[in-house]
Amino acid sequence: MGKNFLDKIQKIKRGPAIMQEKDIGVILTNTSINKDSIVLDSGTGSGKLSAYLSQFVKKVYSYEKIKEFYEIAKDNFNFLKIKNIELKNKDISEGINEKNLDLITLDLLEPEKILIHAKEALKEGGYLVSYLPNMTQVIEFIKNIPKEFIVEKILENIERSWIVKDKIAKPEHTGLLHTGFLVILKKK
Amino acid sequence: MGKNFLDKIQKIKRGPAIMQEKDIGVILTNTSINKDSIVLDSGTGSGKLSAYLSQFVKKVYSYEKIKEFYEIAKDNFNFLKIKNIELKNKDISEGINEKNLDLITLDLLEPEKILIHAKEALKEGGYLVSYLPNMTQVIEFIKNIPKEFIVEKILENIERSWIVKDKIAKPEHTGLLHTGFLVILKKK
Amino acid sequence: MGKNFLDKIQKIKRGPAIMQEKDIGVILTNTSINKDSIVLDSGTGSGKLSAYLSQFVKKVYSYEKIKEFYEIAKDNFNFLKIKNIELKNKDISEGINEKNLDLITLDLLEPEKILIHAKEALKEGGYLVSYLPNMTQVIEFIKNIPKEFIVEKILENIERSWIVKDKIAKPEHTGLLHTGFLVILKKK
Amino acid sequence: MGKNFLDKIQKIKRGPAIMQEKDIGVILTNTSINKDSIVLDSGTGSGKLSAYLSQFVKKVYSYEKIKEFYEIAKDNFNFLKIKNIELKNKDISEGINEKNLDLITLDLLEPEKILIHAKEALKEGGYLVSYLPNMTQVIEFIKNIPKEFIVEKILENIERSWIVKDKIAKPEHTGLLHTGFLVILKKK
Repeated sequence: MGKNFLDKIQKIKRGPAIMQEKDIGVILTNTSINKDSIVLDSGTGSGKLSAYLSQFVKKVYSYEKIKEFYEIAKDNFNFLKIKNIELKNKDISEGINEKNLDLITLDLLEPEKILIHAKEALKEGGYLVSYLPNMTQVIEFIKNIPKEFIVEKILENIERSWIVKDKIAKPEHTGLLHTGFLVILKKK
Repeated sequence: MGKNFLDKIQKIKRGPAIMQEKDIGVILTNTSINKDSIVLDSGTGSGKLSAYLSQFVKKVYSYEKIKEFYEIAKDNFNFLKIKNIELKNKDISEGINEKNLDLITLDLLEPEKILIHAKEALKEGGYLVSYLPNMTQVIEFIKNIPKEFIVEKILENIERSWIVKDKIAKPEHTGLLHTGFLVILKKK
Repeated sequence: MGKNFLDKIQKIKRGPAIMQEKDIGVILTNTSINKDSIVLDSGTGSGKLSAYLSQFVKKVYSYEKIKEFYEIAKDNFNFLKIKNIELKNKDISEGINEKNLDLITLDLLEPEKILIHAKEALKEGGYLVSYLPNMTQVIEFIKNIPKEFIVEKILENIERSWIVKDKIAKPEHTGLLHTGFLVILKKK
Repeated sequence: MGKNFLDKIQKIKRGPAIMQEKDIGVILTNTSINKDSIVLDSGTGSGKLSAYLSQFVKKVYSYEKIKEFYEIAKDNFNFLKIKNIELKNKDISEGINEKNLDLITLDLLEPEKILIHAKEALKEGGYLVSYLPNMTQVIEFIKNIPKEFIVEKILENIERSWIVKDKIAKPEHTGLLHTGFLVILKKK
């Protein structure tokens, strides 16, 4: 497992917009998770975030409500030979079955509607990260955070790739100026 | 282990400049490592990168040549109750004892001098990441890369923390505009 | 005039937060102004933006409602030996006396309340730039733009200062990550 | 003049890479120039920087050694109805005819070779700005600065354009991550 993870993850089937390595890195390093953690990711999309999480934690539950994306993700996890993701074709707004989770990651619309379930499913001191492309969504999300959560950080990252070769040393001229904002909550 | 890792890591003793979460995230997501990986980190400094790596991989070897920093790192790993780091008060430029490593991370001057040892210590397809504050160092490093390695990426990250509260929604006015460049190599 | 403008502008008295060169540059290059232009700046604050505009256009009207800042700006314009700014201790929300303006710049709260006056004071094809620290303010401003205006651009700039000397070539580690958003409108 | 400068400048013929508004703004606000200034721009390229400078200063001399670009620039200045640019099909490395200049801007290879001429052509306290895409070029340039000049600033700018409309408030996802570094010198 994971021997050629990077090579393979670049070849997975793509459905919706896919999370970038820089943003996955922010999640890994700001949520106190480790090899023993149990996490939940929703919506799965093509499965890139779930696949990355599966490399570093014990167990990943992954909820995707749209059948088409669920099938893409299932194929991708098989292609990547990942065994520790339990993928469900399920709408997280209807509830979370798991308890005592270390982390919940949300890449979906109106994440504020999930907080009522998330606060039951997370363990004390557990984290929730919501990935949101729009600042309007961040503002709306922040307005609706129940008293059981603390807003730890709201982060965004601009990554530049440099070309250094012979007489050249410069950042690539064009690229991603924005992907999404990451709102990191901690359950009290 | 790790239950309050973030809370505790913020309280570790500090020696030299300490690596940021954003840069550690880039390392985790661009080097194909996972829970089964064996990695080597040098120079350890206060131990923050080694400590983070220890959360996500099987075993971390950590070399620090300066006795003072070695003692700080040892105290920090004890404080963090980390069991899977083998810390050595050792100068990596004199050689690497381990073989078949999945990843080597270098936060030290003249990393090009370590490549002769790194190519022996890394497994085929293994990664090496050099963290360098100066572009002059990146240029010098790139000039000296042996044929056994491929330059995968040269990355830098600007992270902004936003304040969203009541009528406020803006990035913090001051902060880090630069930490270091991350040069990611892969052994053929 | 202007011989040592940069040297002197760095020594002016400061009242409220002062606009940065990078943001003034965005205003100059995105509003079609030139040596023949007549512009209005409000609120003046310590007068830095008005002073810069005065170097490049024919005439600057500058409205500052707070007596204390008005006095600071007056002293600063005298110190800078600027003759083509007409400074008024006046609240722009009560109306604009001038007509046929080429540009109006607003560095004040609730700029949407000024648009009713601005549309009368600007010439056809004239520009209005609102400088706003918060994205919430940008959202509110955009909601209230009358049909006489087109939103041309909403810009923000991150500037990095590099240190290049001997073996060093790196951006300064700390600095400004955010100043404000610049909303550029054009009158139809 | 300049009534529709922005509309027109977007339609000029393009030869080589064209300078961005953000970078032109940095030049205008960091070199103490004003309506009375006499400046020299080389290489002209398609003439965008010269055209912008002509809006704000008294007189622009513009040197372009490549006949093809010289012709493009000539057409563009005619199209823009600019009268205060004196365009020459001339190689600046062979010398500068003008004296007592307030500013020299260089968008060309090996700008260090021009400094010997620039120090004669600039007035005391005058500025020189070199626009360089590569950090290697900046390093080489800085190494060769004669004692008659002070390095004032080395700047780069990342600009983001935001989309704010209805429920959307986010930066455009893709765009320019890098254009060039601006090295600003002042003659003692």
